[in-house]
Amino acid sequence: MSNFPKRVQIKEEGPREGFQIEKTFVPTARKIEFINALADTGLKTIQIVSFVSPKVVPNMADAEEVVAGITPKPGVTYTGLALNDKGIERALATKRLTVKGSITLCASESFLKRNQNRTLEQQLAAQRESIALYKQHGLPIEGAGISAAFGCNFEGDVPVARIMGLAADIFTVAAEQDVAIKSFALMDTMAWGTPDRIKRVLGALQDKYPDLEYILHLHDTRGMGIANAYAGLEMGVAHFDACVAGLGGCPFAGHKGAAGNVCTEDLAFMCAEMGIETGLDLEKLIECARLAEDIVGHPLPGSVMVGGSLAKLRQKVAA
Amino acid sequence: MSNFPKRVQIKEEGPREGFQIEKTFVPTARKIEFINALADTGLKTIQIVSFVSPKVVPNMADAEEVVAGITPKPGVTYTGLALNDKGIERALATKRLTVKGSITLCASESFLKRNQNRTLEQQLAAQRESIALYKQHGLPIEGAGISAAFGCNFEGDVPVARIMGLAADIFTVAAEQDVAIKSFALMDTMAWGTPDRIKRVLGALQDKYPDLEYILHLHDTRGMGIANAYAGLEMGVAHFDACVAGLGGCPFAGHKGAAGNVCTEDLAFMCAEMGIETGLDLEKLIECARLAEDIVGHPLPGSVMVGGSLAKLRQKVAA
Repeated sequence: MSNFPKRVQIKEEGPREGFQIEKTFVPTARKIEFINALADTGLKTIQIVSFVSPKVVPNMADAEEVVAGITPKPGVTYTGLALNDKGIERALATKRLTVKGSITLCASESFLKRNQNRTLEQQLAAQRESIALYKQHGLPIEGAGISAAFGCNFEGDVPVARIMGLAADIFTVAAEQDVAIKSFALMDTMAWGTPDRIKRVLGALQDKYPDLEYILHLHDTRGMGIANAYAGLEMGVAHFDACVAGLGGCPFAGHKGAAGNVCTEDLAFMCAEMGIETGLDLEKLIECARLAEDIVGHPLPGSVMVGGSLAKLRQKVAA
Repeated sequence: MSNFPKRVQIKEEGPREGFQIEKTFVPTARKIEFINALADTGLKTIQIVSFVSPKVVPNMADAEEVVAGITPKPGVTYTGLALNDKGIERALATKRLTVKGSITLCASESFLKRNQNRTLEQQLAAQRESIALYKQHGLPIEGAGISAAFGCNFEGDVPVARIMGLAADIFTVAAEQDVAIKSFALMDTMAWGTPDRIKRVLGALQDKYPDLEYILHLHDTRGMGIANAYAGLEMGVAHFDACVAGLGGCPFAGHKGAAGNVCTEDLAFMCAEMGIETGLDLEKLIECARLAEDIVGHPLPGSVMVGGSLAKLRQKVAA
């Protein structure tokens, strides 16, 4: 019936996706403290900063100082988000970050117009330019992705056929540029995903592209994050992006409320209870979640950080 | 693959399970206002009070006044929780509530000892006394249930075999007392449920008792509520208890944090997006959730009340 993976890898995005939407500037030292704590939980990939204009995202103005300040842990990959030439150059200049190229399209033309003033056609052209840029910097390009993959606040539902069309576009561009795509991310940027929708889109993609490594990037705005992750697990998805304590949200998505990413420790808890390996120390993740709350200075939406792990209760009962 | 029901019925328990754990007394008029608003959302069954000692649950001290004060809506069943002779008499005396008997066992001996000072054996004997009491009052007995069905904070995991044993006990007692059980509730009292555990327990019960109507009573303490409900839907479960805004929690379960029941409008949202009928007006439920937050005076954990429904966004996009 279900096709659960034996092992799940979670990429932590809290320091980047979480702090970028905070209105108050998070002191550099506290960002560094948080990233170092995360690296001690068993997380193997942590996206720690983005290289964007400080006018647009003031909380990322200290990206270089943050990267220079951390104590890199052997075996942990630290990444930074870079969306243009300048960003890539800044990321590479740190000499501490793993920087990779990817072919990423947005499924919503309305969202594209609003945020990048581009049409679906134009974003494909822009991806060709990005690939040239990655190649120029000698960066590997192995990942592809589609944002707003399940729906968009400004455009509505995204039909499966559009996802399949965009995937075909991605592989056409990849082939013409001699790029071999290995992983494919579906990003539920504005939280339109529900478990059945996740399964329909994944099912269609897996039928056509069975050998890709699928990644789910989920938001919990409407409370579906963990259920959507579970639907992904049922489809064999073994790679998830997540944020400790449910930090995060998209600053451009027009949400007012506590729109967070799917919560790392809640997802890790579910996997552990299902016997799926994550390599993560749940109690240490919970400590990081509490640290995140202390740093941002307001309650965060994570649940296990409040309810506690079952492993700890089992120990207590056994004692 | 999945066996989704066409239609789901949600029993609202917010006024009872939600208000009972609030430390501040909720004024009678506001309880009535909330119950009347809930009755206008399409909910067909609402548990509005419990008849327990006001010393133990001060917020239920005005149960009779609440029942007398509501404006009963035709087609809506209002229920009250009554656990002993006095409670049943108080509930019946209101002449407005539907009162039914049930055979309910707790799967955790540690929890039983702690809260009722009983062994598993003794609770079975107590159920025989309850049945006599229900019969004496002429109450129908059609429901059975098991609390702490997936695990217990004071005892640990509950194996499937114990659930099957307790179910067998229930049906033995029912047969000897000439009681025909139609529905069977699994209560995740202390939020030990995960989707796969829900499926294992349900699967075992459905194999042995295929004709029962199963009910899931879920708590969201560890963020698994909606994923667990989804797992239930996959197993064909069509009956859920829930609380608007995620009100609730068990006052005896030893939780410190924001332990709520699974959220009515989040569950209704998921069902609606999956094409499963609930008969509920999601926007009105969201209004009730905001009303609940106003009444209790602190944030409640519901998500769709913050993130908004997709139906509304679709309308906006189409306009």
